[in-house]
Amino acid sequence: MTSHPPHGHPPDVHARHGREPARSVADHAAAVAALLQGLRTAGRTEMLPLGQALGRGLAADVAAPVSLPPFANSQMDGYAVRSSDIPGDGADLGVVTPVPAGSTPPALKPGTAAPIMTGAVIPAGADAVVPIERAVPDHFLQPGQGGTVTLPATGPGTYVRYAGSDIAAGERALAAGTCLGPAQLGLLAALGMAEVPVYRAPTVLLVTTGDEVVEPGRPLPPGKIYDSNGTLLEAAMKQAGLTVRRAGISTDNPEELRTLLRAQGRGADLIVTTGGVSKGAYEVVRQAMAGQPVDFLHVAMQPGGPQGLGTFDDVPFLGFPGNPVSCLVSFEMFLRPALSGLLGAPAARLPLRARLAHALTSPGPKHQVRRGSLQPGGTVRLEGGESSHLMHALAGSNVLVHVPAGVTELAAGAEVEVWML
Amino acid sequence: MTSHPPHGHPPDVHARHGREPARSVADHAAAVAALLQGLRTAGRTEMLPLGQALGRGLAADVAAPVSLPPFANSQMDGYAVRSSDIPGDGADLGVVTPVPAGSTPPALKPGTAAPIMTGAVIPAGADAVVPIERAVPDHFLQPGQGGTVTLPATGPGTYVRYAGSDIAAGERALAAGTCLGPAQLGLLAALGMAEVPVYRAPTVLLVTTGDEVVEPGRPLPPGKIYDSNGTLLEAAMKQAGLTVRRAGISTDNPEELRTLLRAQGRGADLIVTTGGVSKGAYEVVRQAMAGQPVDFLHVAMQPGGPQGLGTFDDVPFLGFPGNPVSCLVSFEMFLRPALSGLLGAPAARLPLRARLAHALTSPGPKHQVRRGSLQPGGTVRLEGGESSHLMHALAGSNVLVHVPAGVTELAAGAEVEVWML
Repeated sequence: MTSHPPHGHPPDVHARHGREPARSVADHAAAVAALLQGLRTAGRTEMLPLGQALGRGLAADVAAPVSLPPFANSQMDGYAVRSSDIPGDGADLGVVTPVPAGSTPPALKPGTAAPIMTGAVIPAGADAVVPIERAVPDHFLQPGQGGTVTLPATGPGTYVRYAGSDIAAGERALAAGTCLGPAQLGLLAALGMAEVPVYRAPTVLLVTTGDEVVEPGRPLPPGKIYDSNGTLLEAAMKQAGLTVRRAGISTDNPEELRTLLRAQGRGADLIVTTGGVSKGAYEVVRQAMAGQPVDFLHVAMQPGGPQGLGTFDDVPFLGFPGNPVSCLVSFEMFLRPALSGLLGAPAARLPLRARLAHALTSPGPKHQVRRGSLQPGGTVRLEGGESSHLMHALAGSNVLVHVPAGVTELAAGAEVEVWML
Repeated sequence: MTSHPPHGHPPDVHARHGREPARSVADHAAAVAALLQGLRTAGRTEMLPLGQALGRGLAADVAAPVSLPPFANSQMDGYAVRSSDIPGDGADLGVVTPVPAGSTPPALKPGTAAPIMTGAVIPAGADAVVPIERAVPDHFLQPGQGGTVTLPATGPGTYVRYAGSDIAAGERALAAGTCLGPAQLGLLAALGMAEVPVYRAPTVLLVTTGDEVVEPGRPLPPGKIYDSNGTLLEAAMKQAGLTVRRAGISTDNPEELRTLLRAQGRGADLIVTTGGVSKGAYEVVRQAMAGQPVDFLHVAMQPGGPQGLGTFDDVPFLGFPGNPVSCLVSFEMFLRPALSGLLGAPAARLPLRARLAHALTSPGPKHQVRRGSLQPGGTVRLEGGESSHLMHALAGSNVLVHVPAGVTELAAGAEVEVWML
């Protein structure tokens, strides 16, 4: 124990306490997006094979180079016919050469029916398909034996998938900024594209701070806690498509933190620290950023109010607070949406509506972010209280619950916005 | 063009058409889970460092080895006090040695206040924290100068986070089968665990089939289509935590497909094929599975009705239909839930309720799975029609919309179950 800050640097005793005008959530989100604007530049795109582009954001509009389907084809296994050949009470038609998928059939002669497989080209002249189940006999004849089949009347266009009915060549298939999931990559493949222009994955240097913080797996001395922020944020960042460089735990010595940032921040697109941004006497991140264009401010949000934002040696920098729930909320409210907006990846959280299972109170001037579990019926149960240290409660949650600034209480049953984690 | 199947093997002309009794979605889901039961055995677990366990399923219950918080600590920067020292109208207390986070303070003497930082140990004797903002002066004094501070009355327990208030040592922190996301991994880190027992990631051999199917990036001859199933399913499987082995495209020659499966299926936990399971004359997967214990059947579902299930040379096998939307629906309805149920990973889709933006019709006996885009207000817009070839419509969707068997029409505004993709 000492009455001096542990590493001989002057404590931040003149930090203002609660006097900074709180910045709104929207304003801080905009500031984070502005800080990271450089991630969306032409030089930061790359062409990737489809198999490597999962979770990336599309860097340019993609126009369909071909139509989908590329040609009119059968939706069923059955017989391709000229619908005008079959009167209202059905007809017997001569069976001609079958059309397997992948072949290019000759034109269909009037009065005949061509066995056709799902996906196969509709022969010229044919305009409908009778499913095999509706034919008599209801199975295909042995090839080469000829024969006839009895078919019911069928309207033109029946079971025909027309060329371009999904998308026509030249139309925009995907917009720049689309996050590439399985369906989007599948569409690009269907269009014949083997690679795709995407934004490069940003690299983030992640540093947790605090003399009280110990790596998991080591013994826990009295007064210390295990570092959960590093694991939590690394996982959240990886899920969001970031390349994460872990710099371990910094002590509360600002000079050590500066040295660490300079040694490991090279080439990073972003530095994120946790802890040391608040109003205490020993705020290592505030102290380490002395002389750098970094603002430490308070966002009107609970948890996650204290935030740092600026650049360290010209590398964009975000200082998150030290509690794990505050870290995750900071990531979800500011960094993740900025990446979604700039790079199209990760996909933005979809705002859903849910009904509160219980009443809650909220500090009026602040946007409160609670954790909850969304139930199948559309109600949301709050997990844990307001406090930002409740990791176990967080681990039992699947949504963030938003209580906007200005709201001081909500009754059970009230509708709230939730974001699925 | 030929009237024979392209590779000289007898076509499956005697396949029954529409006569197999359709199996319910629930029954087929149970059959898929039973097929894959072997994935959940003790020999298939491994210990992984937290940083490598993202998205895996927990293989055993985890009890908390320590309490969280491990000790009573301060929720605020401020002064630790004995609440009984401060009468209703406040008191001046002598300021003693500060308590930074990570230190182990001596007991607090009556009549004194210890500057304390967020997360720091509450000194013995102290039972409350007064936030610095409520103190006079409202900033910390220079260390070593002594002095007094004026503090308002504060109830016992104020701004104290008690040991074990999040979770007590010995309690179950996470249940076996939990999918490990950022919050769950963060909790394990907070508990001091450096590694975690998880189920091994299954390896799947993925084969698309069809003479009509061409790799993206190559020229597209007439009558052919690009393979989108491979890209689509590979991405969906990777998202679900599977290790995917792509075997490219098989022709419609069953002997070639068998050879490919034998060459590349070794060591795989599962074989998935697409196409060739329906009722056409040339169904390569049906033919290739001759002699193997594989059922080809029809599930009462649209799209994705035709399915194959069994083992090929003792490797579990699933035969999905050939249309891309059918493939994704098959994956989402059968394979993904089976993995979630057996291994805890991927996380199960949360069933949500949404209101239809438009009316729809559905084939009564079948469970229909439509694609839609869920709007922030809680309505869902259908994207594309019922047809299973609409990749562009699928790429514009963010949910699957469920219309249960027995329902033939739903009005606009009707509530439906949706699964977020």
